[in-house]
Order: sequence, then structure tokens, then C-alpha cells
Amino acid sequence: MAPVINGKVIFNEVPTGYPEPGKTLIYQEETIDPNTITLAPGEWLVKVLVLSVDPYLRERMAAPSETYFDAFPLGAPIENFGVGLVLRSENPAFKPGDHVYGIMDFAHYAVCRDSVLAKGHVIDNTHKLSWSTYVGAAGMPGETAYYGWKEYARSKEGEIAFVSTGAGAVGSLVVQLAKRDGMKVIASAGSDDKVKYLREIGVDVAFNYKTTNTLEVLKKEGPVDVYWDNVGGPTLEAALETAANRGRIIVCGMISSYNGETPHVFKDLTVIMSKTLSINGFLVTDLEAKYMDEFRATMPKLLASDEISFREDLTRGLENSAEAILSVQKGTNTGKKVIIVADA
Amino acid sequence: MAPVINGKVIFNEVPTGYPEPGKTLIYQEETIDPNTITLAPGEWLVKVLVLSVDPYLRERMAAPSETYFDAFPLGAPIENFGVGLVLRSENPAFKPGDHVYGIMDFAHYAVCRDSVLAKGHVIDNTHKLSWSTYVGAAGMPGETAYYGWKEYARSKEGEIAFVSTGAGAVGSLVVQLAKRDGMKVIASAGSDDKVKYLREIGVDVAFNYKTTNTLEVLKKEGPVDVYWDNVGGPTLEAALETAANRGRIIVCGMISSYNGETPHVFKDLTVIMSKTLSINGFLVTDLEAKYMDEFRATMPKLLASDEISFREDLTRGLENSAEAILSVQKGTNTGKKVIIVADA
Repeated sequence: MAPVINGKVIFNEVPTGYPEPGKTLIYQEETIDPNTITLAPGEWLVKVLVLSVDPYLRERMAAPSETYFDAFPLGAPIENFGVGLVLRSENPAFKPGDHVYGIMDFAHYAVCRDSVLAKGHVIDNTHKLSWSTYVGAAGMPGETAYYGWKEYARSKEGEIAFVSTGAGAVGSLVVQLAKRDGMKVIASAGSDDKVKYLREIGVDVAFNYKTTNTLEVLKKEGPVDVYWDNVGGPTLEAALETAANRGRIIVCGMISSYNGETPHVFKDLTVIMSKTLSINGFLVTDLEAKYMDEFRATMPKLLASDEISFREDLTRGLENSAEAILSVQKGTNTGKKVIIVADA
Repeated sequence: MAPVINGKVIFNEVPTGYPEPGKTLIYQEETIDPNTITLAPGEWLVKVLVLSVDPYLRERMAAPSETYFDAFPLGAPIENFGVGLVLRSENPAFKPGDHVYGIMDFAHYAVCRDSVLAKGHVIDNTHKLSWSTYVGAAGMPGETAYYGWKEYARSKEGEIAFVSTGAGAVGSLVVQLAKRDGMKVIASAGSDDKVKYLREIGVDVAFNYKTTNTLEVLKKEGPVDVYWDNVGGPTLEAALETAANRGRIIVCGMISSYNGETPHVFKDLTVIMSKTLSINGFLVTDLEAKYMDEFRATMPKLLASDEISFREDLTRGLENSAEAILSVQKGTNTGKKVIIVADA
């Protein structure tokens, strides 16, 4: 293989609010020769095909002391879940030509290794899904929805679930898992288009939180047995206020506080006792050992057969990564955001 | 049996702040003939020996819509866990002469039946504990500590536990369960005498929260892997702020909000996500089926052999019930508060 242009998305500066393309993140190119890149034992080199854009990335664009994940090092490429075509390998699990899921740099060519966020694994793709699906509904966001729901929802037929960011990559799957368990599902989203999508995937009570008061909806349609929280802040407060006795609150994300906003003040937490609530924050990696095999055996099939539907919002070109990342922080994406870096 | 004087503690008025003896609760006497009291099938008549005084009683002195337990009906005797000597029985499980644990009126003589709070059961008392123990460390408060700890603490040797109201009926047992699991234990109480007691039962870091800043102690001695919350409010906030990653918060009570106080405002709950916390409110009755047999088989023995110690604060005379109840709300009791109604 001859020398090639390799683009990279570099973490240039810790943002105070929303990440700014060209400032927080910059795109750079260099020429590399894939044949001569040094691989340590256990590493493998890929041509990057797709990269996932997830809300939690904002949490890694922090000073090291301020985040629960490893902060991205300044001056180096950011990384996330992706699918790559193996070119060379010093890992016995992978050979050239394999399509491997794992953590990889935002680059055209990336040296990969197993990470605490994900161990690399070959995608057999029995069900002929697109590679982007494997960083979405069949990847980390799908695992997040599936693991968290199985572990904490304790769903019962006829009970009521409320899902915030219900049209998002994780939320839209949670909505469908709740429906499959026979629950009445309330879900919120930030545009009328997303609300329409919520109805298409079976949500019983769908509303636009920007034009409709969440607390009023929950008072009318609740009480809420299970609340899947992707946002925190006033939405969490409304769910606490309208929680059913023995309600479960699953805290998957709190995007309302990722971008430098003043933290929301909670008026009262006595409901935790008076309603004997269960509130669980979780990381998908903590539940992997328990549910991963089950997930990989069932989810791709459910997606391929349309029993569970999903929506993607694809951005073509690595150089557009920063804009894609910002859109997810602002909620202007319309489905699971994936960057298509190369077609094959 | 000839007619006898029967005293009763009547719920007279819903309090706005602390319950007031002579106003919230009034003591009345009447003459009854235990032989002629009608018993429905399943009921039994007892001479009341001991009655438990617990923090949660304040929650039942509410307007019916405002409490998670059945509110006490106005004009009728209040009730709680007690031990009685059976005089007559229309329940095949009990015969005259049995000592039975269950829910009973604050009265000298009480007609009992199985309640959602407790099913009556005969105390065999193999270990010759006092009857008062069976409404304390071997009764509901003991069950609360034991069930909640077993279900939610996920304790690990070397981890750090923090227990508020550590010298109380429940807290003092939680402290000892945590020590038995090999944890470092921090505990707070509201007087120097109680702090001294905390040290006697093995607490590593004991402090008086009225004279020492809780948050400062936790910052120095934490992070807190398990917080057992009996109080809510600023203490809960301090525990959230100093929680360890994957910390567990067990919400057993929130006495800081029982007596009409303005609810505490919580500045920030993003830690639930950033530290992936687990927060569980619970009711002892919800965990009974899972742990009751184990508890009854082990706790009385541990108490009789002094492997787990406990402290009681006995009030003699049913007519002093309201003062005893108030003392528990104010925290001026020095151990598990029990009313000795009769000696045998």
C-alpha cells in the first residue's frame, strides 16, 4: 500500500460551553504509510469505515479532573466506537479483511487496541446490517438501552414508562423495549418531526418538550413507574414529582448539564423515601459481562426483521466530525448520528 | 376476668410541626370487660406489654392524602409494633398465654389482627431476650437495618460506609453490620453522649453533627461507598457530594422533613450520572418475604451473645406515650425508645 493522506480530528481546547468546531476540535491531515506504522503486540491497524457520535463525548472534552471518563488528551485525536476494516494485525483475534468493532481514533487510519470502553470484536454480520448500525442500535447505544432496561426497569405489563429524548439513539430503543414489555409509554423530544417519529414507533403519549409542559403531561398521563432519564434537570424533577410508588428511575445521561449550564436546583427529594424510589445511574461497560452475549444474539436479528426500528442521521466525511458532534449536543440530529468515513 | 381500666392514646389532631402531647395525641381511660369484647374470626385480644416508638409514626399523623403509610384515623387510638400476652383468640395461630408480636393499639388491652405492617407471630424467645428487644433490635428496626443492608449495600471489605443517626435504633445496627462486613464506618449523631456510644460499638469516625460540619468530615474521611440515610436534607446532599464512584445510597428515612420543615433544596444531582450512583428508598415490609426467616434465625442469637449490641431507652406507662413519641422526633432519646405498658 502506498503512502496515503490521513485526516485526524484533534482535541485542541477544553470548551466552557458547547464544543466549537475549529476551536475545540480541529481537523488536520498528514501523509502516512500504512505499511510502516509500528504495531505493538495486541494492536491492529484499520481503515476506519464508520464512527459513532454520542452525547457522552462532551464529557470527555473536559479537564481530566472533571469527568467520569478518561478525558481526551489535548493535541491528540479524539476516539469513539467505530467499525474498521483490518489492514494489518498483531492481535491473534483479527486478520486483514475482518470488519472489527471497537474504539478507534477519529482518523482515516487508526491503530486500535482493546479499551476499557470496548474490547474489539469481529462483526460476523449474519443479518447484513449496514456498518453504521453496529455503532448504533446494534452497538453501544443499543447496548445501553438494552442493558439498562433489563437491569433496572423491572417492567410490568400495564405500567407506565416515561422516556426523555425518546427519539434519540438510546431513547428510541428504550421506547420500543418498554412497548414490547406491554407498558404504556410517554416520551418527549425536541421537535415536531421527532414527535411524529415517536408515534410511528408506538409511543402512546408523545410530546414536544419545547412547546408542551412536561410536568403537566406527566401529571395527566402518569404516575410514572419507570423513568428513563437522558437529560436530568427539570425533566428529572418532573419525573420525581409524578413518580409512582416503588418507581424506578434509570439515569442514563444528563445532557442538560454537559455544556456548562448552571446545575438545576431540586426542590425536594423526600419522594425518594415517601415513594420508595429506586434511582440508578449506570455505565454500559459495568453491565457488559451480564448482558453482552444475549444482546449480540438477539438485537441484530430484531433490527434486521424490523421488529425493532431505528433511525440514523449520517454525516459523510471525517472533516465534518466537529459539526456532527455539536449537532448531537444541541439535539438537532434526527436519529443516531454516525460519521461515514469510508464506504469500504 | 373482672372489668378493668383501659387507657388509650388517641390521635386527636393533625400536627403542623412536631406532635404536641395533649393536643396531637391525648390519653383517655375507659372501663372495659376483656371477657365480653367481641372478636371477629382471625382476631386476638392481648394485654399489651411493650409498644415501639419509631420515627415513621410522625408520617402517619398526617392528613390521609399526605403520607405513604395509612394515616391514623382521627379520634381513634394510634397503633404500632408491640408485644402482647394473648388473653383470648379467634385466630388458630394463637392461644391464651402466648406472647405475640404484631401491630397493636396504644392501649392496655388491644384487639389485634394481621396487618400489612406485620403479621402476628408467636415469639418463642429461645434466647431469653426482654420483650422490648422484640420491638427493637429483634423487631422492626432490626429488620429494617438487616433487610436494607443485605439488599442494597453491596458491601466490600475495606470500603467506607457513612451512617446518619448512627446511635439510633436502626443506625446503631447498620453501623455494626457494616463493621462485620469489614468496612470503615463513619457515623453521626446529635449529642456527645451518642458519639461516645458510637465509638463503643466500633465506629471508626464518630462525630456530633451539631458541632462538626458533616461535609468536612466526609471530604476528609470519604469517599463514601455506602451511605445509610435516616435524615435526608443537607446530610444527604453532603453524602451525594462525597460519594465514591458506584456509590450506594440507602434511603431508610428522612426525619429532617417529617415535622413540617421546609424541604431542603439540592444544588445538583448530576453526580447520579457522573458517579453512577444507586439510590434506593425502601420499606421494610417490601423486603420481608426475602429476609424474614434469615433474620429471625440469626439476629436474636447475635443479640443474646452480645455479638451485636443495642441500647434501649424505656418509658414506663402508656400515659407517657406522646412525650416518648416527641422525644424520638426531636432526637432526645438515647437508644431504641420503647414504652413499657405492663410487666407481664
